Amino acid sequence: MIILTDGHSNPITAKTACSVLRYCQNEVIAVLDVAAAGQTAEQLLGAGGKIPVIDNLDAAPDAKTLLIGIAPPGGKTPAHWRPIILSAINRGMNVVSGLHEFLADDTEFAAAAETAGTELIDVRRNDEHDVAHRDGLRSDCLRILTVGQDCCVGKMVVSIELTRDLKARGQTTKFVATGQTGILIAGDGCPIDCVVADFISGAVEKQILAGQHHDILCIEGQGSLAHPRYSAVTLGLLHGSMPHGMILCYEAGRETVNGMPNIGLKSLSELREAYESSARLMMPSQVIGIAMNSRLLSAEAAEVERDRVRQEFDLPVCDVFRHGPDELTEAVLQLKQQLENQVDQ
Amino acid sequence: MIILTDGHSNPITAKTACSVLRYCQNEVIAVLDVAAAGQTAEQLLGAGGKIPVIDNLDAAPDAKTLLIGIAPPGGKTPAHWRPIILSAINRGMNVVSGLHEFLADDTEFAAAAETAGTELIDVRRNDEHDVAHRDGLRSDCLRILTVGQDCCVGKMVVSIELTRDLKARGQTTKFVATGQTGILIAGDGCPIDCVVADFISGAVEKQILAGQHHDILCIEGQGSLAHPRYSAVTLGLLHGSMPHGMILCYEAGRETVNGMPNIGLKSLSELREAYESSARLMMPSQVIGIAMNSRLLSAEAAEVERDRVRQEFDLPVCDVFRHGPDELTEAVLQLKQQLENQVDQ
Repeated sequence: MIILTDGHSNPITAKTACSVLRYCQNEVIAVLDVAAAGQTAEQLLGAGGKIPVIDNLDAAPDAKTLLIGIAPPGGKTPAHWRPIILSAINRGMNVVSGLHEFLADDTEFAAAAETAGTELIDVRRNDEHDVAHRDGLRSDCLRILTVGQDCCVGKMVVSIELTRDLKARGQTTKFVATGQTGILIAGDGCPIDCVVADFISGAVEKQILAGQHHDILCIEGQGSLAHPRYSAVTLGLLHGSMPHGMILCYEAGRETVNGMPNIGLKSLSELREAYESSARLMMPSQVIGIAMNSRLLSAEAAEVERDRVRQEFDLPVCDVFRHGPDELTEAVLQLKQQLENQVDQ
Repeated sequence: MIILTDGHSNPITAKTACSVLRYCQNEVIAVLDVAAAGQTAEQLLGAGGKIPVIDNLDAAPDAKTLLIGIAPPGGKTPAHWRPIILSAINRGMNVVSGLHEFLADDTEFAAAAETAGTELIDVRRNDEHDVAHRDGLRSDCLRILTVGQDCCVGKMVVSIELTRDLKARGQTTKFVATGQTGILIAGDGCPIDCVVADFISGAVEKQILAGQHHDILCIEGQGSLAHPRYSAVTLGLLHGSMPHGMILCYEAGRETVNGMPNIGLKSLSELREAYESSARLMMPSQVIGIAMNSRLLSAEAAEVERDRVRQEFDLPVCDVFRHGPDELTEAVLQLKQQLENQVDQ
């Protein structure tokens, strides 16, 4: 596939591209960004190694699929991408999108795809219409949810890295994808931010029930309880998944809400309190570790920050890329042991 | 119009019918419930005076509209209503529905309506696709949100009664409808529980901006922060409307979550704490009064309960039907005075 990020190749807006480059590298031929052509994906987006950045579709004629590589607020397609998408369709490429605006609902795209005999795949499209029932949850399947100080801090990445590490230690574990990028990587899941409001918790519950033959579920968090736009999604996910434990994710150095530079972030400790008290309305749950995204910090500054947060919270703290997820994995395994002891009693 | 409640004529499931009978009585010709035919609407549903209950559409040949009068969990049409709805369409009646399942998406209904030249009006249909911006809120427009211990406790009714009383006292006040029944009564609003998850707060914000030329907005609450199904809707509404004050609504005598008899309700004091701490993530806000729905209690028991809750919370407490909303109105006016003093400073 070719990943389209043209004009939006920063790690926040193009987080779909970055994560697909990181976790599905073998499936990617090129990244399309006109102004950055000639660079590697690694140089442009910090992932993807030597995969080239190209300036038009002709430069990668073997590609079968075009992936829309961004997730802007509100999920709309940039206007100048329309001719690129149409051109891809006309060449017989399938187009995969995680935007709120569905490709298949666009009459021009739909007509072109019909003529070309190609597929338009909208990952966020869903038909969730069931409320939560709170019935049939397996008592000895451990549910771990990543929660955030803000959106776009790395919750999905933490859930994936944790899943990998738990599997490597012999635990049957599933990454439960709840966002478009996670679904692209996992191959299943539910795009929870695109479900009709009344059915958010019900849609999450369905994912939990489908995955609970695993011993551990690492559930991808969304948004933040303190995000003015997305807090509803976050609470629906928290109440629908009823986690036994939560991992609080944040980006060191960020001071304002993602996408809303006039609004300051709430502190980590306010957020921990908010998550634990909101969870308690359904089932007691605690933050068992903190995942620090330290991409803006030097190695030295990251260690200082890690120590500071460890001292403040007396919890395991790590950057899953810089330090590996081991400390968080240990915290999850400890909680699993506690759960097993409870179930045995 | 005729209101259809056949087989579901209880005040919880048929709350749409009850409220339309109460607030739009002049527009209703009859209620259709086969088993209860011959009763009055007042006898069957506790509202609507002498409006007759009928057992088929022939009994009210002048009706131009059939209103689906229920709001079941999940919002699906009862199967045995299909022939009644089809028959109404075939007679040339318009059909109005607040269900999640849209009439217009039903191929049989849609074909019949096209043949008959009638309209299918789905009140919950919306195309909200904008995130919240937190921009342009009028600082001296007082926002009051009703919040609940549970869903179906009377939040809409409290907001409407409060709006009426504030208007009667000369305050320019608007009832901001956020649910299908409120919209039927107000003639505008947004069906917030049917908005795509990412846009809940944005859709609420839009209603606030559209109404804030009034001095007071009484915003209809939805669900409950402690409802396993609908808490996401509740939080999106709380964070999108950023109320200056909240009125906590509950039904005296209810012990389990509406629709989930195995799950006990959280206490009023836990709910007050949850609403105030969740609101604080955006803007400080307090519960300024408690609206008790005492329909299950005798007059005497209602007074005992009122005293108990007054003592526990040291707040105004009333049943807006039994006692009138005066105490709550006074609390709103006090808060308005405080806001004016702040704005003046």
